[in-house]
Amino acid sequence: MQDPKNISRVACVGTGVIGGGWAAHFLARGYDVLAWDPGAQAEAALKRLIETAWPALESLGLAAGASLDRLRFTDSLQEAVGDVAFVQESGPERLDLKRKLLAELAAATGEETIIASSTSGYSMTDMAAEAEDASRLVVGHPFNPPYLIPLVEVVGGERTAGWAVDQACAFYELAGKSVIRMERELPGFIGNRLQDAIWREALHMVAEGEATVEQIDQAIVDGPGLRWALMGPCLTFHLAGGEGGMAHMLDHFGPALKEPWTRLEAPELTKELRDSMVEGCEREAGERNIAELVRERDRGLIAILKALRESNTGGARQ
Amino acid sequence: MQDPKNISRVACVGTGVIGGGWAAHFLARGYDVLAWDPGAQAEAALKRLIETAWPALESLGLAAGASLDRLRFTDSLQEAVGDVAFVQESGPERLDLKRKLLAELAAATGEETIIASSTSGYSMTDMAAEAEDASRLVVGHPFNPPYLIPLVEVVGGERTAGWAVDQACAFYELAGKSVIRMERELPGFIGNRLQDAIWREALHMVAEGEATVEQIDQAIVDGPGLRWALMGPCLTFHLAGGEGGMAHMLDHFGPALKEPWTRLEAPELTKELRDSMVEGCEREAGERNIAELVRERDRGLIAILKALRESNTGGARQ
Repeated sequence: MQDPKNISRVACVGTGVIGGGWAAHFLARGYDVLAWDPGAQAEAALKRLIETAWPALESLGLAAGASLDRLRFTDSLQEAVGDVAFVQESGPERLDLKRKLLAELAAATGEETIIASSTSGYSMTDMAAEAEDASRLVVGHPFNPPYLIPLVEVVGGERTAGWAVDQACAFYELAGKSVIRMERELPGFIGNRLQDAIWREALHMVAEGEATVEQIDQAIVDGPGLRWALMGPCLTFHLAGGEGGMAHMLDHFGPALKEPWTRLEAPELTKELRDSMVEGCEREAGERNIAELVRERDRGLIAILKALRESNTGGARQ
Repeated sequence: MQDPKNISRVACVGTGVIGGGWAAHFLARGYDVLAWDPGAQAEAALKRLIETAWPALESLGLAAGASLDRLRFTDSLQEAVGDVAFVQESGPERLDLKRKLLAELAAATGEETIIASSTSGYSMTDMAAEAEDASRLVVGHPFNPPYLIPLVEVVGGERTAGWAVDQACAFYELAGKSVIRMERELPGFIGNRLQDAIWREALHMVAEGEATVEQIDQAIVDGPGLRWALMGPCLTFHLAGGEGGMAHMLDHFGPALKEPWTRLEAPELTKELRDSMVEGCEREAGERNIAELVRERDRGLIAILKALRESNTGGARQ
């Protein structure tokens, strides 16, 4: 199998908002990108997307050798994927189309080529149904825009080979992504599960007249959303427990889980769950004690508040 | 009733992490702060908290006349609140204690003094049960740390006077907060409802072994969390719909609401709900079309990514 360090060329199959965003990301990280999309005016739309994104990517810093000229759009799917070691598939989010496209890609590529799908929710086990060789098919789920949001979630299907998942993770890391390797298939993966929990609660609240769209967005942007750009919900609550951290937080505020604060009921706070949360936070915190984490959070929040103020974006600010 | 512009002195009752954070905020905004807390070493802890926060507040910019010397800690509750127009109550989060303390505060203050409670979930109708005069009691729910996170949620109880809610909102706005005025009592208010939806889904996932604490935090920090510091979940999805915005997003991705992407079931996507979401997003977007919002989001994301990189905080980054 090819060393991910030697991969210099990537194919982007499907070049809409997500696929085009991937193309921009790979170009900025110094790859050659072969692009294919059967849509009318797809090539022009892709070029517009990348040219719009490029100044942003320049200001964040391009990889050595990165250039817009390393993009090549082709009308032939075979030409796009026939000679690359990594294919990012971002076709329409319809199961029948995904099945057909992934089967085609598996047949059109060499036996060492990884094919990663940007699907936002289908499992690879489902999507691989029509592929003869499903061993190289993985999910590589990004967040929009893929050239700015670092996260990619990687998981294989039942017929995916372990080496293919390893290879995809290693490649994405080298390509500058923040990789979560999932050990099992889960509808919505991890990020969308969490995001959808908020989204569904928000929809319920609007449906019931409990809050407006604007209040919901303001509540997140000027509230917990500012913290979440820095620290996830677990570490955030680790800090809410004072010096006692997550253990204190769960032991003292655990009863609040019974309160009807959202439509989603909480799980039973068993000793096992409590310990998993505490140990997870301690692993994340590493050698940083609570006071250090608080200082880090505050330093990060100040940096974010100033950045938003200077870039004239974001919600109502102090 | 006193013009909020003339309020120059605030009492902070209860000076733990939240109450002390409020004190730091009010001092930085140029108020005199009278503080009271019956805990052992409360005064020393408060001073430490404020001194730790102060350099951050200086770097964000202090209001004219703001000074650490304008803090006065007193052992007498009556002295703290007897002659101020605004009291921020941040006592322990226990209903019996809140009832007792709020009744005491209502009795100890003048008939124009607003008393705002930092409670994270109790309704003012419940908390005001023992107060003779409940007309001036409002919820003023902050997020931690109150001196950096702008959001405050304001709502009255059944016996609260409308003018008191108006007054609290006007005062908080002048004091530099981002105010959500809620029209009705709702368990968990708005921010905690949304935050708790994520938190409960996360607890379920850890309990079932679907994700680790670290994966959950990484998924948020390197994924949707970065966007949420800029744009709430509704406006984020308005941008996910391409040029068609929220209308396109709901019409095309609405069926995904039936998918088991989280444990919380979605509401029925009725025409009314669809229209409320679309109209809300259009109001929020104002004159900005989708392309302008995308540029604004990207500009904000770049500013945040750079700020986090420079302040050496946050998750794995590009």
